[in-house]
Amino acid sequence: MKVGGVSYRSIWVEDDGWSVGIIDQTTLPHDFHRTRLTTLDEAADAIRGMKVRGAPLIGATAAYGICLAAREDASDDAIDRACDTLMATRPTAVNLRWAVDAMRRALQNLPRDERAAAAYARAAAICDEDVAINRAIGEHGLVLIEQVAREREGTVNVLTHCNAGWLATVDHGTALAPIYLAHDRGIDVHVWVDETRPRNQGALTAWELGQHGVRHTLIPDNAGGHLMQHGMVDLCITGTDRTTRIGDVCNKIGTYLKALAAKDNGVPFYVALPGPTLDWTVRNGLTDIPIEERSGDEVSHVRGMGPDGMPAHVNIVPAGTAVANHAFDVTPARLVTGLITERGICAATEKGLGDLYPEHAET
Amino acid sequence: MKVGGVSYRSIWVEDDGWSVGIIDQTTLPHDFHRTRLTTLDEAADAIRGMKVRGAPLIGATAAYGICLAAREDASDDAIDRACDTLMATRPTAVNLRWAVDAMRRALQNLPRDERAAAAYARAAAICDEDVAINRAIGEHGLVLIEQVAREREGTVNVLTHCNAGWLATVDHGTALAPIYLAHDRGIDVHVWVDETRPRNQGALTAWELGQHGVRHTLIPDNAGGHLMQHGMVDLCITGTDRTTRIGDVCNKIGTYLKALAAKDNGVPFYVALPGPTLDWTVRNGLTDIPIEERSGDEVSHVRGMGPDGMPAHVNIVPAGTAVANHAFDVTPARLVTGLITERGICAATEKGLGDLYPEHAET
Repeated sequence: MKVGGVSYRSIWVEDDGWSVGIIDQTTLPHDFHRTRLTTLDEAADAIRGMKVRGAPLIGATAAYGICLAAREDASDDAIDRACDTLMATRPTAVNLRWAVDAMRRALQNLPRDERAAAAYARAAAICDEDVAINRAIGEHGLVLIEQVAREREGTVNVLTHCNAGWLATVDHGTALAPIYLAHDRGIDVHVWVDETRPRNQGALTAWELGQHGVRHTLIPDNAGGHLMQHGMVDLCITGTDRTTRIGDVCNKIGTYLKALAAKDNGVPFYVALPGPTLDWTVRNGLTDIPIEERSGDEVSHVRGMGPDGMPAHVNIVPAGTAVANHAFDVTPARLVTGLITERGICAATEKGLGDLYPEHAET
Repeated sequence: MKVGGVSYRSIWVEDDGWSVGIIDQTTLPHDFHRTRLTTLDEAADAIRGMKVRGAPLIGATAAYGICLAAREDASDDAIDRACDTLMATRPTAVNLRWAVDAMRRALQNLPRDERAAAAYARAAAICDEDVAINRAIGEHGLVLIEQVAREREGTVNVLTHCNAGWLATVDHGTALAPIYLAHDRGIDVHVWVDETRPRNQGALTAWELGQHGVRHTLIPDNAGGHLMQHGMVDLCITGTDRTTRIGDVCNKIGTYLKALAAKDNGVPFYVALPGPTLDWTVRNGLTDIPIEERSGDEVSHVRGMGPDGMPAHVNIVPAGTAVANHAFDVTPARLVTGLITERGICAATEKGLGDLYPEHAET
């Protein structure tokens, strides 16, 4: 999508044909810095230090990390070491493991002098596949926004939680893909952006939307229910980290509260997801998905830009206060109006998902 | 309640018998500073600058402001000027108007040389009435906590939103009054404290509870639903700014989302209120209570303590981002399990309130 009028992906090969460009997301939303990765270690550092974030983008960065490693030493040993190094950066990231395995399989049976070129080709394919999936999610979700626009005059108001935009993927994003498409096709769309405490990923969503020219308003996480009570939200669309085979949605903490408010006010609540985030091994998300608890510092210390324009943080709790920081919650399928996938929109039910993904339904 | 082992009210007459002590709430929760008010202007500044906050405490401070004025000049003109000065500090505060009118009525027909003493007596009575009301709310609400403690082993977990504690009143608080009583009577009670963005009044609640020795954990506003889904909340108790004659509850933004989660998980949701916050002129809170919109700066700029221990703030949104800041929402009576008043607990219905307050029910 666009930054300052120029089209970007979140990761790309530079004009030199081998080094890898990324956006340093640690300085967003206040500063836009591009960074060049030239070695495996720089790629690993970028993942570890969260310069790149979002499951698909982490996978893509790992894939290019293996390209950078193979360019210097394409021996079996060197490739194995590169895979191990990258796997250790964010041990729980499912996409990371998937991308590293895909790269390993693409290279292992090739002669050594063909590996670097094959690695770049496979990494590019991983990126293009992600873009194609998100683009398809966008097209399917667009129909929902068009429907609201057809039914009545005026702005279509969409509420979203966290950042499920192009910064978390290679391009387009998941929840935001339909919104970007609607905007590009001339629909008057406005986005209510939950700030998404404690990590405030809503600021990234606001930055993305602002750079691409999509109208939006940032709100405290507490506000969405009030807006829905007063008819100010036409549609909710969020992303998901993991969705079960019956349609329970695990996503950023607070998603469940918005789904409750949507149900109570008759506002459709949709979840956008690429097929690979479906977990066919789990049925009941509430009982069977473990919820990560993160450091209380993310709650007690708020990071932002100080009055001097430099990064700063403030402590907002009394000394010694106990703090809990559950990173995700589970929205039961009964509260989800539908799932927007790259294969179409389906009900959040085992039947709905099974019809779209018959190859998994039997497992 | 206690601060560092010493019992406090939020306002008091100093040992000299005339100057007025308050806690400077602008430096909380990081620093505990007491301040002495010696003139009308200092009292007015304390209200205007939010050194005192919470409707009952604002009223009490205004009452003592008139005492300080009457001490210097008890003429009709001086009393009128004092009333006007105080009324202008927070023009929309209902308790402020009520306290100023009560003081004016108490003094107007007295000889001039009796006015100062009468003023101090009336101000003390206003404070004592508030303490008695909150104490009664505490006793009635305590029954709910005792009931949970009787039904099963272990800690009683109460979730609260915003600050409805003793800092917002003269003592005890409203929502926190039952919790303090339970703690003082040896019940193992633990409080989940919503941080309450954007103004983070949860930090005040955490400070209060910590100083009095009540166990508590501060959480992002997004977390309460997840906790209720997992059986980690026995009871919700919040305060209210205004409750309608049919039991719709206007309170800090985000209260409605917690009431929805409580309903969805079978967790009782109670609202603690002094009778004077009932608005008998309004039925439908959703359509008939205007919701204040405050400055977006409260959302975009987070205040706290910098790494050097000094007050600081950080900007957490991209430059130029539009921000909305609705201060309150309305929780429909159907989501409220009961109202805890100084006269007892009742259903959040016109009948329930009418039975407790028959003198208003006919109006």
